[in-house]
Amino acid sequence: MATSKHPWAEELPLLYDHLWKCLTRGISDRDAAARHPTLATVNKSGMPQARTVVLREADQQAATLATYTDIHSDKIASLRVNPAAALHIWDAEQKLQLRVEANVTILNGDEVSERWQRIPEHARTAYSRGPAPGEPIANSLDYTKTPAENAFAVLWLDIQAIEALHLGQHHRRAIFKRANNWAGQWLVP
Amino acid sequence: MATSKHPWAEELPLLYDHLWKCLTRGISDRDAAARHPTLATVNKSGMPQARTVVLREADQQAATLATYTDIHSDKIASLRVNPAAALHIWDAEQKLQLRVEANVTILNGDEVSERWQRIPEHARTAYSRGPAPGEPIANSLDYTKTPAENAFAVLWLDIQAIEALHLGQHHRRAIFKRANNWAGQWLVP
Repeated sequence: MATSKHPWAEELPLLYDHLWKCLTRGISDRDAAARHPTLATVNKSGMPQARTVVLREADQQAATLATYTDIHSDKIASLRVNPAAALHIWDAEQKLQLRVEANVTILNGDEVSERWQRIPEHARTAYSRGPAPGEPIANSLDYTKTPAENAFAVLWLDIQAIEALHLGQHHRRAIFKRANNWAGQWLVP
Repeated sequence: MATSKHPWAEELPLLYDHLWKCLTRGISDRDAAARHPTLATVNKSGMPQARTVVLREADQQAATLATYTDIHSDKIASLRVNPAAALHIWDAEQKLQLRVEANVTILNGDEVSERWQRIPEHARTAYSRGPAPGEPIANSLDYTKTPAENAFAVLWLDIQAIEALHLGQHHRRAIFKRANNWAGQWLVP
């Protein structure tokens, strides 16, 4: 085969490392595709829900990710019923799709107080007492956000599988599973 | 209130029209955020799944959308068990999130043959006989795609609700429901 522009796409171990490079860039680089993944969950009626989140932590060794949320948000209610989540990233520049399957643990209170301390004052309004996100209001700005440490929750994603689809000159698709120690398996795209 | 840079964000009817303008741009403009939404479904084990799709049709009057897929794909299997879908768009430039709830009908065969005729030859390989997308293969390129009209399916999304979140200078969130004839309701962001 001719030399490829994307050597990382052609070998499973290289691809796996590349996926983690992408995820990790989401933490440090505000413009990286992995900065704003879509988190899909299932609500108590069995309906899928999806929303943008901000990726906050990524640990390749443990194969875990983390994002933050207001404990009153609908995703918390959904995850309490069904802790499975799908995290989705489409990197248009690389023509690379990442699909992460994870079990989610909700962390709150003392176990996340160190993280709370590191959140800048102006950013703390995203975690608020008072009316919950999604409550009906008469006018668009009929709400106030009052920072509250006990409204701050961390969604801790224990990754079970990562699937990659690369739409390069050739299309390639692979899945990596925790159960197989991340060995990787090519799939028909 | 001072004059806003985003008058469409401040009145429910303007916001609703703006959301449809965004969706419709996804059909005609390859670079529009709505060109590549994330489609979330629930598989037969009750797990959420999410993947990028290409938006193909948008009809504000009927409040329907459409995307195309290979009938052998995992989203078809999931939608046959649970026809509910969430379509998600994050428009980074506008700082605008669209969340669409829809009931999906799978169209195939004669009812989509006119659409099939309009698909250019080179694009038809996305709908193929032979090994299904997601089947394990020994090497990354151990597959061939042979266009097959009977593998071509249209996912017809009958929208039940559209939720918007605008992260402008002020944050605004609203939901529009078919059941309320799309009148709209402000929500706490």
